[in-house]
Amino acid sequence: MTVLPDQPVLRALLAALGDDGVLAGSRLMAARLRDASGAPSAVAPLALLRPRSVEEVSAALAICHAHDQPVVVQGGLTGLAAGANPLGGEIALSLARLEGIEDIDAEEGTMTLRAGTILQTAQDAARAAGFLLPIDYGARGSAHIGGAIATNAGGTRVIGHGTVRQNVLGLECVLMDGTVLSHLVKFTKDNSGYNLAQLFIGSEGTLGVVTRAVLRLKPLPPPAETALCALPDFPAALKLLRSARAKTTLSAFEVMWQDHFLLCGGRGLFSPDPDIALLIECEGGGLTDLLADAYSEGIVRDALIASSQAEADRFWDIRHMDHLETPLTHEINLDVSLPVVAMDGFARRCREDLGALDPDLRSYVFGHVGDGNLHVVVTLPRADPALVHRVEETAYGLVRALGGSISAEHGIGRLKRDWLDHSRSAAEIAAMRAIKAALDPKGLLNPGKII
Amino acid sequence: MTVLPDQPVLRALLAALGDDGVLAGSRLMAARLRDASGAPSAVAPLALLRPRSVEEVSAALAICHAHDQPVVVQGGLTGLAAGANPLGGEIALSLARLEGIEDIDAEEGTMTLRAGTILQTAQDAARAAGFLLPIDYGARGSAHIGGAIATNAGGTRVIGHGTVRQNVLGLECVLMDGTVLSHLVKFTKDNSGYNLAQLFIGSEGTLGVVTRAVLRLKPLPPPAETALCALPDFPAALKLLRSARAKTTLSAFEVMWQDHFLLCGGRGLFSPDPDIALLIECEGGGLTDLLADAYSEGIVRDALIASSQAEADRFWDIRHMDHLETPLTHEINLDVSLPVVAMDGFARRCREDLGALDPDLRSYVFGHVGDGNLHVVVTLPRADPALVHRVEETAYGLVRALGGSISAEHGIGRLKRDWLDHSRSAAEIAAMRAIKAALDPKGLLNPGKII
Repeated sequence: MTVLPDQPVLRALLAALGDDGVLAGSRLMAARLRDASGAPSAVAPLALLRPRSVEEVSAALAICHAHDQPVVVQGGLTGLAAGANPLGGEIALSLARLEGIEDIDAEEGTMTLRAGTILQTAQDAARAAGFLLPIDYGARGSAHIGGAIATNAGGTRVIGHGTVRQNVLGLECVLMDGTVLSHLVKFTKDNSGYNLAQLFIGSEGTLGVVTRAVLRLKPLPPPAETALCALPDFPAALKLLRSARAKTTLSAFEVMWQDHFLLCGGRGLFSPDPDIALLIECEGGGLTDLLADAYSEGIVRDALIASSQAEADRFWDIRHMDHLETPLTHEINLDVSLPVVAMDGFARRCREDLGALDPDLRSYVFGHVGDGNLHVVVTLPRADPALVHRVEETAYGLVRALGGSISAEHGIGRLKRDWLDHSRSAAEIAAMRAIKAALDPKGLLNPGKII
Repeated sequence: MTVLPDQPVLRALLAALGDDGVLAGSRLMAARLRDASGAPSAVAPLALLRPRSVEEVSAALAICHAHDQPVVVQGGLTGLAAGANPLGGEIALSLARLEGIEDIDAEEGTMTLRAGTILQTAQDAARAAGFLLPIDYGARGSAHIGGAIATNAGGTRVIGHGTVRQNVLGLECVLMDGTVLSHLVKFTKDNSGYNLAQLFIGSEGTLGVVTRAVLRLKPLPPPAETALCALPDFPAALKLLRSARAKTTLSAFEVMWQDHFLLCGGRGLFSPDPDIALLIECEGGGLTDLLADAYSEGIVRDALIASSQAEADRFWDIRHMDHLETPLTHEINLDVSLPVVAMDGFARRCREDLGALDPDLRSYVFGHVGDGNLHVVVTLPRADPALVHRVEETAYGLVRALGGSISAEHGIGRLKRDWLDHSRSAAEIAAMRAIKAALDPKGLLNPGKII
């Protein structure tokens, strides 16, 4: 039995959700309560709510609303922007028990599922039914589909299948006052008023709580072909990207600058070690011809085409940083979008400017170039919040100057909130605040995040 | 020189936009001022504004805002929902002179253009640069790209390339108070706060005025293969759709029920006349094999594969209703989305129930089945508003019962406003009103539309 602090809001929540629906005290201590960002989170939430149904989510939020109680929404806690971390005074609401696939509809090509469903569970169920669920990223084993929607998660398949935004057909959300907005349609075309789903997608739990969704399923693609390539320079990557788009069905186009490639096990794979390495993957053939043409044009210097899934997996291990020459210390994961023509300049300038901050700082650049998305992994010699701030200031300053986005796929959350004006104008941020105030007038839902 | 009624708002607008930027009086009479819906529009606008720049749009809206003057936004006036029609007391704002392509960026694969650019002009420019602009519909010769965005226009290419929503990367809008929200990014991934662009897309000029956009360009597709097929029944169409999605790159999948097919020139093309006819188009091969397999499985009874573009055009003429056995009288164009499994039942029940309203009423059903979208063309024996209302009541009642949408691609505008509750809940409509009030607190922008 949960022993609760004697607060009216907690008593009301206990009455609504039952004993195992409200964790507090010692039971709260055992729960995981912060995301994967490693951001410091000084405080625990007041309690952890674990609703099992949309009705319980609605009841819990209505109670908190009536008591002016702030709420932080939690999915699989795989985020990297501290968007799901309590900042002080919130009750946490976990969707973990609102899980399960409700329906796979082979005729419509859709899956209807609850927010707490693990991404990989949904992927496996789609595959068993003969379909591809075209959402995929590294944290698939613990990420919730609701969190994927709330953060408009990206990943490596975006170039072929779009972000989560392009794969949601219907959505159900609960507003802070408990109002359920349910629009679980299974069709592509729907111009019946404002597209509320598209507004909630990527709003990181600040406008409403995602409870259910209808996702688009696609036919299972033909087997992928994978290659690891050595390129003379970054412009060659852009030339190859354009011809690959025209001649193949691209499912990944991952560029690694030399520092990253060597750190992650690429040293000695090509001779000499290339300035730019590329992992390219196509669905349904054409890769060998593409690379042969590119070789004859000098766009590709050398290429290893995977002859087995095990070999393709080894290429992906390099990209995913699974085996490192040197362990990372005090790392910062930057995630930015840029025009592709600006990427190489950004990568080189970023390395220079960050290196000037501290001689023992290291940075490693790679990215989903076809989506305009670069990641910079920065390792610091010591835990040093002031140095972290200078790294962000330097990198986001470059992003602002190049007209980029300070968040391509990780979201703004808490960690990037104070940098939002580097990508969005004061007028845009004011419009966001107006929309926030319209849907959550008391400002109780995930306060302190995004804006 | 425009002779204006002596109203302060018009004097201020004339000072801001100049003589040829404000049409009133006799010059107003010569302008086209209503959309293609044929909906009755009893009143002319007070004046027609023709800004040439984003700055002039902003200035004009700020003046109207200061004077509590309602504004109706007009693009190419090809809409079918009366969304751009003045209802009484508005000033009309046309984007026709804010036109032109600013940039085609071959590296990023994007086109940046102004709202008043004609769709076909943009398509032609993309093609000349070696790209496909993947937005297309019948009104391409006069529709504005801004209107396409404001209405999230659909069309026949949606099955392959998505609606406008999926093809807009960056967007610039002006709010009613003159605030310019500009976010003209060229990349796919951008999770920097709320996606305002996705909210404005499809909001039919009620939240802001689209002034510029960045559209995604795609590689030019290989030549299309086109066939006209006779199918035994609608379930066969669904079987063929599923295998076509898996085995080909579909660019159109247009189903015609018999009444439509015979009305539009299909009579005698197959023997016997089929219950269900299909126009199918694939990019890049595979159609002949697909149809041969389908024939052997009994899914397709007969098929005509176009051997020339002229023949493909003749097939499209049937689908587009270009040559009719009987002229249409007093027609109503219904545009609904439904689960595909419900479509055949809807088509048959709709014909029955509408026929029962008046013995001389006729209805013809066809649709973009792969997108869940059906059109019903209803012809009435006479102009009769009461009969029009009963037709809508009957058809939208069926849509509501089947969980469909009363607008797949045409939008809500004025004509469907009073039926919105057949597709959206009271809670959803209240959320829409809250968002509208947040961005246009005085309710001056396109009043009386959608909600």
